Amino acid sequence: MHTEFHLLTNGPGLYQFTDQVMDWTQAQGGSGLLTLFVRHTSCSLLIQENADPQVRFDLKAYFDRLVPRSDRPEMSYLRHVAEGPDDMPAHIKAAMMPVTLSIPVVDGRPVLGTWQGLYLFEHRDAPHQRKVAAHLA
Amino acid sequence: MHTEFHLLTNGPGLYQFTDQVMDWTQAQGGSGLLTLFVRHTSCSLLIQENADPQVRFDLKAYFDRLVPRSDRPEMSYLRHVAEGPDDMPAHIKAAMMPVTLSIPVVDGRPVLGTWQGLYLFEHRDAPHQRKVAAHLA
Amino acid sequence: MHTEFHLLTNGPGLYQFTDQVMDWTQAQGGSGLLTLFVRHTSCSLLIQENADPQVRFDLKAYFDRLVPRSDRPEMSYLRHVAEGPDDMPAHIKAAMMPVTLSIPVVDGRPVLGTWQGLYLFEHRDAPHQRKVAAHLA
Repeated sequence: MHTEFHLLTNGPGLYQFTDQVMDWTQAQGGSGLLTLFVRHTSCSLLIQENADPQVRFDLKAYFDRLVPRSDRPEMSYLRHVAEGPDDMPAHIKAAMMPVTLSIPVVDGRPVLGTWQGLYLFEHRDAPHQRKVAAHLA
Repeated sequence: MHTEFHLLTNGPGLYQFTDQVMDWTQAQGGSGLLTLFVRHTSCSLLIQENADPQVRFDLKAYFDRLVPRSDRPEMSYLRHVAEGPDDMPAHIKAAMMPVTLSIPVVDGRPVLGTWQGLYLFEHRDAPHQRKVAAHLA
Repeated sequence: MHTEFHLLTNGPGLYQFTDQVMDWTQAQGGSGLLTLFVRHTSCSLLIQENADPQVRFDLKAYFDRLVPRSDRPEMSYLRHVAEGPDDMPAHIKAAMMPVTLSIPVVDGRPVLGTWQGLYLFEHRDAPHQRKVAAHLA
Protein backbone atom coordinates (compact mmCIF):
# COMPACT_ATOMS: atom_id res chain seq x y z
CA MET A 1 0.00 0.00 0.00
CA HIS A 2 1.41 3.38 -1.04
CA THR A 3 0.30 6.95 -0.44
CA GLU A 4 1.83 10.41 -0.22
CA PHE A 5 1.19 13.03 2.46
CA HIS A 6 1.42 16.69 1.44
CA LEU A 7 2.37 19.04 4.24
CA LEU A 8 2.36 22.83 4.00
CA THR A 9 5.11 24.56 5.96
CA ASN A 10 5.48 28.23 6.75
CA GLY A 11 9.00 28.68 8.04
CA PRO A 12 11.40 26.61 10.14
CA GLY A 13 10.06 24.40 12.92
CA LEU A 14 8.31 21.11 13.70
CA TYR A 15 4.96 20.31 12.07
CA GLN A 16 3.04 17.39 13.53
CA PHE A 17 1.28 14.96 11.18
CA THR A 18 0.62 11.99 13.48
CA ASP A 19 -3.14 12.15 12.89
CA GLN A 20 -2.92 12.02 9.08
CA VAL A 21 -0.69 8.96 9.31
CA MET A 22 -2.89 7.24 11.94
CA ASP A 23 -6.01 7.85 9.86
CA TRP A 24 -4.38 6.23 6.85
CA THR A 25 -2.99 3.16 8.67
CA GLN A 26 -6.32 2.61 10.43
CA ALA A 27 -8.18 2.81 7.11
CA GLN A 28 -5.88 0.07 5.75
CA GLY A 29 -6.18 -2.01 8.93
CA GLY A 30 -4.11 -5.09 9.73
CA SER A 31 -0.53 -5.41 10.95
CA GLY A 32 2.80 -4.84 9.25
CA LEU A 33 5.41 -2.15 8.79
CA LEU A 34 4.90 1.54 8.02
CA THR A 35 7.72 3.40 6.24
CA LEU A 36 7.76 7.17 5.74
CA PHE A 37 10.21 8.85 3.36
CA VAL A 38 10.55 12.59 2.78
CA ARG A 39 11.25 13.48 -0.85
CA HIS A 40 13.39 16.57 -0.14
CA THR A 41 16.94 17.39 1.01
CA SER A 42 16.21 20.39 3.23
CA CYS A 43 13.80 19.04 5.84
CA SER A 44 13.72 16.04 8.18
CA LEU A 45 11.32 13.52 9.72
CA LEU A 46 11.39 13.33 13.51
CA ILE A 47 9.69 11.31 16.18
CA GLN A 48 9.62 13.54 19.23
CA GLU A 49 7.76 14.34 22.43
CA ASN A 50 4.19 15.45 21.74
CA ALA A 51 3.46 16.80 25.24
CA ASP A 52 5.36 20.02 26.01
CA PRO A 53 5.55 22.38 22.97
CA GLN A 54 8.75 23.84 24.46
CA VAL A 55 10.55 20.67 23.37
CA ARG A 56 9.93 21.71 19.77
CA PHE A 57 11.07 25.26 20.51
CA ASP A 58 14.29 23.93 22.09
CA LEU A 59 15.01 21.49 19.24
CA LYS A 60 14.82 24.32 16.72
CA ALA A 61 16.92 26.62 18.94
CA TYR A 62 19.62 23.98 19.45
CA PHE A 63 20.01 23.03 15.79
CA ASP A 64 20.01 26.69 14.71
CA ARG A 65 23.03 27.20 16.99
CA LEU A 66 24.74 23.96 15.95
CA VAL A 67 24.38 24.81 12.24
CA PRO A 68 24.49 28.62 11.89
CA ARG A 69 23.26 30.35 8.75
CA SER A 70 25.81 30.67 5.98
CA ASP A 71 26.04 34.48 6.27
CA ARG A 72 27.52 34.14 9.75
CA PRO A 73 31.31 34.74 9.94
CA GLU A 74 32.06 31.30 11.42
CA MET A 75 30.40 29.69 8.37
CA SER A 76 32.39 31.63 5.77
CA TYR A 77 33.98 28.38 4.53
CA LEU A 78 30.66 27.27 2.96
CA ARG A 79 30.44 27.48 -0.84
CA HIS A 80 26.81 26.58 -1.62
CA VAL A 81 25.33 29.96 -0.67
CA ALA A 82 23.52 31.13 -3.82
CA GLU A 83 20.10 29.87 -2.68
CA GLY A 84 20.16 31.91 0.54
CA PRO A 85 21.80 31.72 3.98
CA ASP A 86 19.24 29.14 5.19
CA ASP A 87 19.86 26.67 2.34
CA MET A 88 23.18 24.94 3.07
CA PRO A 89 22.40 24.72 6.83
CA ALA A 90 19.13 23.02 5.79
CA HIS A 91 21.08 20.40 3.82
CA ILE A 92 23.39 19.83 6.80
CA LYS A 93 20.45 19.37 9.18
CA ALA A 94 18.86 17.00 6.65
CA ALA A 95 22.07 14.91 6.76
CA MET A 96 22.04 14.82 10.56
CA MET A 97 18.37 14.00 11.21
CA PRO A 98 16.23 11.25 9.65
CA VAL A 99 14.72 11.35 6.17
CA THR A 100 13.04 7.97 6.59
CA LEU A 101 11.25 6.29 9.51
CA SER A 102 10.05 2.69 9.84
CA ILE A 103 7.44 1.86 12.47
CA PRO A 104 5.80 -1.51 13.15
CA VAL A 105 1.97 -1.41 12.90
CA VAL A 106 -0.31 -3.64 14.97
CA ASP A 107 -4.06 -3.77 14.27
CA GLY A 108 -3.92 -0.63 12.13
CA ARG A 109 -1.92 1.43 14.63
CA PRO A 110 1.80 2.36 14.51
CA VAL A 111 3.26 1.24 17.85
CA LEU A 112 4.29 4.76 18.89
CA GLY A 113 5.09 5.18 22.58
CA THR A 114 2.80 7.28 24.78
CA TRP A 115 4.75 10.51 24.25
CA GLN A 116 5.81 10.01 20.63
CA GLY A 117 4.47 12.16 17.80
CA LEU A 118 5.44 12.27 14.11
CA TYR A 119 6.87 15.57 12.86
CA LEU A 120 8.18 17.12 9.70
CA PHE A 121 11.08 19.41 10.71
CA GLU A 122 11.17 22.24 8.16
CA HIS A 123 14.63 23.83 7.82
CA ARG A 124 13.90 26.46 5.12
CA ASP A 125 12.58 29.99 5.64
CA ALA A 126 10.18 30.15 2.67
CA PRO A 127 6.81 28.35 2.66
CA HIS A 128 6.97 24.90 1.10
CA GLN A 129 4.72 22.01 0.19
CA ARG A 130 6.56 18.91 1.44
CA LYS A 131 5.87 15.43 0.12
CA VAL A 132 6.19 12.42 2.41
CA ALA A 133 5.87 9.04 0.66
CA ALA A 134 4.34 6.27 2.77
CA HIS A 135 4.48 2.50 2.35
CA LEU A 136 2.59 -0.11 4.39
CA ALA A 137 3.03 -3.84 4.01
CA MET B 1 6.30 -11.34 12.97
CA HIS B 2 6.29 -8.88 15.87
CA THR B 3 7.97 -8.84 19.25
CA GLU B 4 9.17 -6.32 21.81
CA PHE B 5 12.53 -6.31 23.58
CA HIS B 6 12.64 -4.85 27.10
CA LEU B 7 16.02 -3.42 28.09
CA LEU B 8 16.93 -2.21 31.58
CA THR B 9 19.25 0.79 31.66
CA ASN B 10 21.11 2.23 34.62
CA GLY B 11 22.39 5.62 33.51
CA PRO B 12 23.71 7.06 30.25
CA GLY B 13 25.71 4.88 27.89
CA LEU B 14 25.51 2.14 25.28
CA TYR B 15 23.81 -1.17 26.11
CA GLN B 16 24.36 -4.01 23.68
CA PHE B 17 21.43 -6.27 22.75
CA THR B 18 22.74 -8.00 19.62
CA ASP B 19 22.32 -11.47 21.15
CA GLN B 20 18.64 -11.02 22.08
CA VAL B 21 17.89 -9.89 18.52
CA MET B 22 19.93 -12.71 16.93
CA ASP B 23 18.20 -15.32 19.11
CA TRP B 24 14.80 -14.04 17.99
CA THR B 25 15.59 -13.85 14.26
CA GLN B 26 17.18 -17.30 14.33
CA ALA B 27 14.12 -18.75 16.08
CA GLN B 28 11.96 -17.32 13.27
CA GLY B 29 14.36 -18.52 10.56
CA GLY B 30 14.15 -17.59 6.89
CA SER B 31 15.15 -14.41 5.08
CA GLY B 32 13.61 -10.95 4.99
CA LEU B 33 13.91 -7.58 6.70
CA LEU B 34 14.30 -6.84 10.41
CA THR B 35 13.09 -3.47 11.70
CA LEU B 36 13.76 -2.19 15.22
CA PHE B 37 11.92 0.83 16.62
CA VAL B 38 12.49 2.39 20.06
CA ARG B 39 9.26 3.62 21.68
CA HIS B 40 10.83 6.56 23.57
CA THR B 41 12.09 10.08 22.81
CA SER B 42 15.13 10.18 25.11
CA CYS B 43 17.27 7.27 23.92
CA SER B 44 18.61 6.06 20.55
CA LEU B 45 19.36 2.89 18.61
CA LEU B 46 22.92 2.60 17.31
CA ILE B 47 24.90 0.16 15.27
CA GLN B 48 28.50 0.55 16.40
CA GLU B 49 31.81 -1.18 16.80
CA ASN B 50 31.59 -4.15 19.16
CA ALA B 51 35.35 -4.69 19.57
CA ASP B 52 37.00 -1.94 21.64
CA PRO B 53 34.80 -0.77 24.59
CA GLN B 54 36.59 2.60 24.43
CA VAL B 55 34.56 3.38 21.31
CA ARG B 56 31.44 3.40 23.51
CA PHE B 57 33.20 5.55 26.11
CA ASP B 58 34.22 8.04 23.41
CA LEU B 59 30.76 8.18 21.81
CA LYS B 60 29.20 9.08 25.16
CA ALA B 61 31.97 11.61 25.90
CA TYR B 62 31.59 13.30 22.50
CA PHE B 63 27.81 13.64 22.58
CA ASP B 64 27.88 14.89 26.20
CA ARG B 65 30.13 17.73 25.01
CA LEU B 66 28.12 18.40 21.84
CA VAL B 67 24.85 18.62 23.81
CA PRO B 68 25.67 19.95 27.30
CA ARG B 69 23.22 19.57 30.18
CA SER B 70 20.61 22.28 30.45
CA ASP B 71 22.01 23.69 33.71
CA ARG B 72 25.20 24.72 31.92
CA PRO B 73 25.46 28.50 31.19
CA GLU B 74 25.82 28.00 27.42
CA MET B 75 22.47 26.13 27.39
CA SER B 76 20.53 28.82 29.24
CA TYR B 77 18.33 29.40 26.17
CA LEU B 78 16.59 26.04 26.70
CA ARG B 79 13.03 26.17 28.07
CA HIS B 80 12.09 22.52 28.67
CA VAL B 81 14.04 22.13 31.91
CA ALA B 82 11.44 21.00 34.46
CA GLU B 83 12.24 17.30 34.09
CA GLY B 84 15.91 17.74 34.98
CA PRO B 85 19.12 18.97 33.27
CA ASP B 86 19.54 15.65 31.43
CA ASP B 87 16.07 15.68 29.84
CA MET B 88 16.18 18.22 27.00
CA PRO B 89 19.71 17.11 25.96
CA ALA B 90 18.29 13.57 25.80
CA HIS B 91 15.57 14.73 23.37
CA ILE B 92 18.19 16.51 21.24
CA LYS B 93 20.40 13.41 21.08
CA ALA B 94 17.30 11.35 20.21
CA ALA B 95 16.70 13.71 17.24
CA MET B 96 20.31 13.37 16.08
CA MET B 97 20.76 9.59 16.32
CA PRO B 98 18.49 6.81 15.00
CA VAL B 99 15.25 5.67 16.61
CA THR B 100 14.67 3.00 13.98
CA LEU B 101 17.00 0.56 12.20
CA SER B 102 16.25 -1.76 9.26
CA ILE B 103 18.58 -4.68 8.59
CA PRO B 104 18.25 -7.36 5.89
CA VAL B 105 18.11 -10.91 7.29
CA VAL B 106 19.48 -13.95 5.43
CA ASP B 107 18.87 -17.48 6.75
CA GLY B 108 17.78 -16.21 10.14
CA ARG B 109 20.75 -13.83 10.61
CA PRO B 110 20.80 -10.04 10.27
CA VAL B 111 23.62 -9.23 7.80
CA LEU B 112 25.65 -7.23 10.33
CA GLY B 113 29.26 -6.63 9.38
CA THR B 114 32.06 -8.28 11.36
CA TRP B 115 32.47 -5.37 13.79
CA GLN B 116 28.84 -4.26 14.06
CA GLY B 117 26.82 -4.64 17.25
CA LEU B 118 23.32 -3.40 18.12
CA TYR B 119 23.10 -0.92 20.99
CA LEU B 120 20.53 1.05 22.87
CA PHE B 121 22.09 4.43 23.70
CA GLU B 122 20.50 5.61 26.96
CA HIS B 123 20.57 9.41 27.37
CA ARG B 124 18.81 9.76 30.76
CA ASP B 125 20.39 9.58 34.24
CA ALA B 126 17.67 7.59 36.00
CA PRO B 127 17.20 3.83 35.49
CA HIS B 128 14.66 3.02 32.77
CA GLN B 129 12.99 0.04 31.18
CA ARG B 130 13.21 0.71 27.43
CA LYS B 131 10.91 -0.94 24.90
CA VAL B 132 12.17 -1.76 21.42
CA ALA B 133 9.50 -3.00 19.00
CA ALA B 134 10.73 -5.49 16.39
CA HIS B 135 9.19 -6.51 13.08
CA LEU B 136 10.40 -9.26 10.74
CA ALA B 137 8.89 -10.01 7.34
CA MET C 1 15.09 -9.97 -3.07
CA HIS C 2 18.58 -9.41 -1.67
CA THR C 3 21.79 -8.07 -3.19
CA GLU C 4 24.96 -6.32 -2.07
CA PHE C 5 26.57 -3.28 -3.66
CA HIS C 6 30.36 -2.98 -3.41
CA LEU C 7 31.66 0.59 -3.51
CA LEU C 8 35.33 1.56 -3.74
CA THR C 9 36.25 4.70 -1.83
CA ASN C 10 39.46 6.68 -1.99
CA GLY C 11 39.41 9.04 0.97
CA PRO C 12 36.70 10.99 2.80
CA GLY C 13 33.74 12.38 0.88
CA LEU C 14 30.42 11.52 -0.77
CA TYR C 15 30.27 8.81 -3.44
CA GLN C 16 27.08 8.62 -5.46
CA PHE C 17 25.58 5.21 -6.26
CA THR C 18 22.05 6.14 -7.33
CA ASP C 19 22.47 4.53 -10.76
CA GLN C 20 23.58 1.13 -9.44
CA VAL C 21 20.55 1.04 -7.14
CA MET C 22 18.13 2.20 -9.87
CA ASP C 23 19.46 -0.41 -12.29
CA TRP C 24 18.86 -3.15 -9.71
CA THR C 25 15.33 -2.07 -8.71
CA GLN C 26 14.33 -1.65 -12.35
CA ALA C 27 15.64 -5.13 -13.17
CA GLN C 28 13.44 -6.53 -10.36
CA GLY C 29 10.44 -4.42 -11.43
CA GLY C 30 7.23 -4.06 -9.45
CA SER C 31 6.44 -1.98 -6.38
CA GLY C 32 7.46 -2.34 -2.75
CA LEU C 33 10.07 -1.12 -0.32
CA LEU C 34 13.82 -0.79 -0.88
CA THR C 35 16.10 -0.95 2.19
CA LEU C 36 19.83 -0.20 2.10
CA PHE C 37 22.12 -1.08 5.00
CA VAL C 38 25.84 -0.31 5.22
CA ARG C 39 27.83 -3.09 6.88
CA HIS C 40 30.48 -0.83 8.47
CA THR C 41 30.80 1.53 11.45
CA SER C 42 32.94 4.26 9.89
CA CYS C 43 30.89 5.46 6.92
CA SER C 44 27.27 6.59 6.39
CA LEU C 45 24.44 6.45 3.85
CA LEU C 46 23.03 9.82 2.82
CA ILE C 47 20.30 11.08 0.57
CA GLN C 48 21.42 14.51 -0.55
CA GLU C 49 21.19 17.08 -3.31
CA ASN C 50 22.55 15.75 -6.60
CA ALA C 51 22.70 19.10 -8.43
CA ASP C 52 25.47 21.37 -7.09
CA PRO C 53 28.67 19.45 -6.19
CA GLN C 54 29.50 22.21 -3.70
CA VAL C 55 26.80 20.77 -1.42
CA ARG C 56 28.98 17.65 -1.03
CA PHE C 57 32.08 19.80 -0.43
CA ASP C 58 30.22 21.76 2.27
CA LEU C 59 28.82 18.66 3.98
CA LYS C 60 32.32 17.22 4.32
CA ALA C 61 33.73 20.57 5.50
CA TYR C 62 30.99 21.00 8.12
CA PHE C 63 31.27 17.52 9.64
CA ASP C 64 35.08 17.72 9.67
CA ARG C 65 34.76 20.83 11.84
CA LEU C 66 31.98 19.39 14.02
CA VAL C 67 33.99 16.22 14.70
CA PRO C 68 37.70 17.15 14.61
CA ARG C 69 40.40 14.49 14.22
CA SER C 70 41.53 12.88 17.45
CA ASP C 71 45.03 14.40 17.29
CA ARG C 72 43.55 17.87 17.71
CA PRO C 73 43.98 19.37 21.23
CA GLU C 74 40.24 19.83 21.77
CA MET C 75 39.72 16.09 21.21
CA SER C 76 42.36 14.96 23.71
CA TYR C 77 39.66 13.29 25.83
CA LEU C 78 39.18 10.54 23.22
CA ARG C 79 40.63 7.12 24.10
CA HIS C 80 40.12 5.04 20.92
CA VAL C 81 43.04 6.51 18.98
CA ALA C 82 45.21 3.50 18.08
CA GLU C 83 43.72 3.11 14.58
CA GLY C 84 44.61 6.66 13.54
CA PRO C 85 43.27 10.19 14.11
CA ASP C 86 40.51 9.69 11.53
CA ASP C 87 39.08 6.53 13.14
CA MET C 88 37.14 7.65 16.22
CA PRO C 89 35.73 10.72 14.39
CA ALA C 90 34.53 8.26 11.71
CA HIS C 91 32.64 6.25 14.35
CA ILE C 92 31.09 9.45 15.72
CA LYS C 93 29.95 10.57 12.26
CA ALA C 94 28.57 7.05 11.67
CA ALA C 95 26.47 7.45 14.85
CA MET C 96 25.17 10.84 13.71
CA MET C 97 24.25 10.06 10.11
CA PRO C 98 22.20 7.15 8.72
CA VAL C 99 23.48 3.58 8.28
CA THR C 100 20.17 2.40 6.83
CA LEU C 101 17.69 3.97 4.39
CA SER C 102 14.20 2.77 3.41
CA ILE C 103 12.62 4.09 0.23
CA PRO C 104 9.26 3.13 -1.30
CA VAL C 105 9.53 1.79 -4.85
CA VAL C 106 6.80 2.25 -7.48
CA ASP C 107 7.01 0.46 -10.85
CA GLY C 108 10.65 -0.42 -10.33
CA ARG C 109 11.75 3.09 -9.30
CA PRO C 110 12.57 4.38 -5.80
CA VAL C 111 10.38 7.48 -5.28
CA LEU C 112 13.35 9.84 -4.88
CA GLY C 113 12.56 13.52 -5.22
CA THR C 114 13.87 15.49 -8.20
CA TRP C 115 17.06 16.61 -6.43
CA GLN C 116 17.72 13.52 -4.32
CA GLY C 117 20.71 11.23 -4.94
CA LEU C 118 21.98 8.25 -2.93
CA TYR C 119 25.48 8.61 -1.48
CA LEU C 120 27.93 6.65 0.58
CA PHE C 121 29.69 9.13 2.87
CA GLU C 122 33.21 7.76 3.49
CA HIS C 123 34.74 9.00 6.76
CA ARG C 124 38.12 7.18 6.66
CA ASP C 125 41.34 8.36 4.99
CA ALA C 126 42.48 5.03 3.55
CA PRO C 127 40.87 3.43 0.47
CA HIS C 128 38.09 0.99 1.35
CA GLN C 129 35.72 -1.43 -0.32
CA ARG C 130 32.35 -0.71 1.31
CA LYS C 131 29.49 -3.22 1.31
CA VAL C 132 25.90 -2.02 1.18
CA ALA C 133 23.29 -4.75 1.64
CA ALA C 134 20.02 -4.19 -0.23
CA HIS C 135 16.59 -5.71 0.31
CA LEU C 136 13.51 -5.26 -1.88
CA ALA C 137 10.09 -6.67 -1.06
